[in-house]
Amino acid sequence: MSEKKQEFSIQDYLNKNKEYFEHLLFELLRFPSVSAVPEHHQDCCRTAEWLERYFQKMGLSTKLIETDAHPLIYAETPVLEGAPTVMIYGHYDVQPTDPISEWETEPFLPTVRDGYVYARGASDDKGPLLSHILAVEYWMKSSQKLNLNWKFFIEGDEECGNGGTQNFVSQNSDLLACDYIVLSDSPQFAPGQPAITCGLRGNVYYQLDLTGANQDLHSGMFGGAITNPCNALTKILSKIQDENGQITVPEFYDDVQRITPERREQLEMLPFEEDEFYASVGVKEGFGETGFSVLERRWLRPSFDIHGLTGGYQGEGGKTVLPARASAKFSFRLVPDQDPQKITRSLNAFLQENCPPGIQMKLTSFGEGAGGLFIDTSSTCMQAAVRALEFGFGRSPFFICEGGSIPIISTFAQSLTPNIIMIGLSQSSDHAHGPNEHFSLTDFHRGIKTSMMLWRELASLS
Amino acid sequence: MSEKKQEFSIQDYLNKNKEYFEHLLFELLRFPSVSAVPEHHQDCCRTAEWLERYFQKMGLSTKLIETDAHPLIYAETPVLEGAPTVMIYGHYDVQPTDPISEWETEPFLPTVRDGYVYARGASDDKGPLLSHILAVEYWMKSSQKLNLNWKFFIEGDEECGNGGTQNFVSQNSDLLACDYIVLSDSPQFAPGQPAITCGLRGNVYYQLDLTGANQDLHSGMFGGAITNPCNALTKILSKIQDENGQITVPEFYDDVQRITPERREQLEMLPFEEDEFYASVGVKEGFGETGFSVLERRWLRPSFDIHGLTGGYQGEGGKTVLPARASAKFSFRLVPDQDPQKITRSLNAFLQENCPPGIQMKLTSFGEGAGGLFIDTSSTCMQAAVRALEFGFGRSPFFICEGGSIPIISTFAQSLTPNIIMIGLSQSSDHAHGPNEHFSLTDFHRGIKTSMMLWRELASLS
Repeated sequence: MSEKKQEFSIQDYLNKNKEYFEHLLFELLRFPSVSAVPEHHQDCCRTAEWLERYFQKMGLSTKLIETDAHPLIYAETPVLEGAPTVMIYGHYDVQPTDPISEWETEPFLPTVRDGYVYARGASDDKGPLLSHILAVEYWMKSSQKLNLNWKFFIEGDEECGNGGTQNFVSQNSDLLACDYIVLSDSPQFAPGQPAITCGLRGNVYYQLDLTGANQDLHSGMFGGAITNPCNALTKILSKIQDENGQITVPEFYDDVQRITPERREQLEMLPFEEDEFYASVGVKEGFGETGFSVLERRWLRPSFDIHGLTGGYQGEGGKTVLPARASAKFSFRLVPDQDPQKITRSLNAFLQENCPPGIQMKLTSFGEGAGGLFIDTSSTCMQAAVRALEFGFGRSPFFICEGGSIPIISTFAQSLTPNIIMIGLSQSSDHAHGPNEHFSLTDFHRGIKTSMMLWRELASLS
Repeated sequence: MSEKKQEFSIQDYLNKNKEYFEHLLFELLRFPSVSAVPEHHQDCCRTAEWLERYFQKMGLSTKLIETDAHPLIYAETPVLEGAPTVMIYGHYDVQPTDPISEWETEPFLPTVRDGYVYARGASDDKGPLLSHILAVEYWMKSSQKLNLNWKFFIEGDEECGNGGTQNFVSQNSDLLACDYIVLSDSPQFAPGQPAITCGLRGNVYYQLDLTGANQDLHSGMFGGAITNPCNALTKILSKIQDENGQITVPEFYDDVQRITPERREQLEMLPFEEDEFYASVGVKEGFGETGFSVLERRWLRPSFDIHGLTGGYQGEGGKTVLPARASAKFSFRLVPDQDPQKITRSLNAFLQENCPPGIQMKLTSFGEGAGGLFIDTSSTCMQAAVRALEFGFGRSPFFICEGGSIPIISTFAQSLTPNIIMIGLSQSSDHAHGPNEHFSLTDFHRGIKTSMMLWRELASLS
């Protein structure tokens, strides 16, 4: 079939099946698959079973894999020897719905208003995931066979982090072996302006506990003589970052991947206004590393944030206590090639060195942390994705980064392949984790169209 | 009556009424008169009413004086023309009880263990205050009339500073006119070693509130770009004191009364071991101003303590939030002749100067603060107090200072009389503001005995 004819065939298929696609999306959205809430365990299992049945109907062989929390779904198309393999990742679980009173319609009763479907999970991640499933179905039904194997790997614990999915990936690299990984769990740059995410920051999270005297003391009787853990906490934490926004922990920047001129240029091309960004969160200015733009500081440079401070008297009015304890939660966002374990060692030594006399210090890491990740934007598969998005959206995508962490992506890169294609179909204004989550039906259909072309483009690379 | 007989009569009265005194103390301790917590407002009022009724029963005329917060109690004995007047001051309100989980028994269910009564307010200040009330009751009942007028002035806002008691004193110097003021809201030097407090530090207490973005943000998406109020709080607070324990606010030390050789000598004579002091609160070393002894740092030098830190996520585990707000409560202890208002002005300018971009800062003073005070130890009334303590405790008292503040004392000195006699009945190990506050019943009874003799000694001065 000629390319033109095939493209006509894709558009024709999309037109004919528009209502069916939406019907299917609404069916999937009706499952209240809230992984963090134990009462919804069975709902999660039923969602997994629904997906498994759909894959079977498409002609894939499937496995429902039990975990400590919610089942994983693995599905694969009949093996085409010698063809490259793409693995599609997604998650069927959703965030809790509270505050429920702020929803305008029921979170698990999908409702269409102004071209958007409103439902929990519509944007994160059922809509985008289904786009890819439906695009694979097209090629499964097509008389033209693509030179491509598909695998689906779908989890039910992305929103709660309990299921040990990362461990499963590390331990099952044979089952999941692939040449490319495709997922859509990141936003477009702006409505109608698609994006490919090519960088993620890592994270390493700590709690610092300081203990002074063996009891709360009266600050009048003891102030000036006994070390105050609250004073000490502010002293110690204030030393982690200097006035220029630089983190002062020795060796912290040793392995930081410097920003290349190409990346800097990519960022500068983005239509991003710092003033508008600040105004969107109600401030006039911000604070970060001197010498870097706001986008560089959010995406390509490490950062240090205190997430919680707890110490002494927190009630109304005043209490002249010299507290026995104080604590803080804080984390570093990391960039390639920083090593969370090395940073924890340096940090611990730095804090011990700066711990004042009369204070006992305890530093606890939450988990092992994750490094940051940059994905090569010049690879042939990335260029294939660019062409697919141009076909689906009628516009070239931007290459963007994500300042947050998606820990499983690091595991994919380490265990499976560096060719990870993160295609943004949702919008950052979709209220992904808040009330009235929604997903644009236009984006849903553009996503299916993009994905249909992506498979052809990837197949043509080999 | 001869002196000997009278002393026998005092001891006899003490022996006969021991159980009654304790019963009365426990009754007073059962009121949860926490002035800083609005929910306890009625409990404070009930405590005041209980005291008023007791004074009426003793034969005093009373007034319950409404304030913006909790009522003041004024009571006076029938006027004896030409006799000197002593005013007894105390407070019926108590500190909050948190952390409540660290109490071994209920804070408002007085419990006796090993000769101590455990309850919030036992040591600060219900026990010591009641000692004086019961000693006055003895002389009211006695057939021998002392050449002395008594006034009681008892407040319910000492621990929260909200009631405008100081203003009341300044504006009612006629009602409260007196020749001597007696109070027991300071500690003994050591168990069984009485003390007269001849110096107090002042205090000026603040809350600092920082606001960043108009909502909590995701630290992955915003970290490195938006100023984090928790980070900012540690930065700002850490600048208030340097590594040598010196407070860095400009002009802070301008008016500090230097330590005279005489005072330094009085301090050096006291049997005080720094190691033992540290060990008593479970630490090996402390922190304070370089170049001063521990006692000097506690009594004769200003200090800076953070009493509370609050910001961001305080629950279990981790949350990657970039909080919208953070706050701290802190205070300076002041020495003569520092001016709280001048210090507040300097502090506010200093904090504004050090407030990072993207942060809104608000500094609130709790009350007007109070300066420090030194009292002349060579006066005749002070020598009378020495004799009373020798009678009550069988030992000569030490002259000590109090690192804490009794702001009202400065007002007394300014508005009423410099003859302020601060008799220590509690112990600094009583956990006055912490969990498991307690008061020695032996000290309670010694206090009554001392006070009974003090009235006779003061009456004999005229």
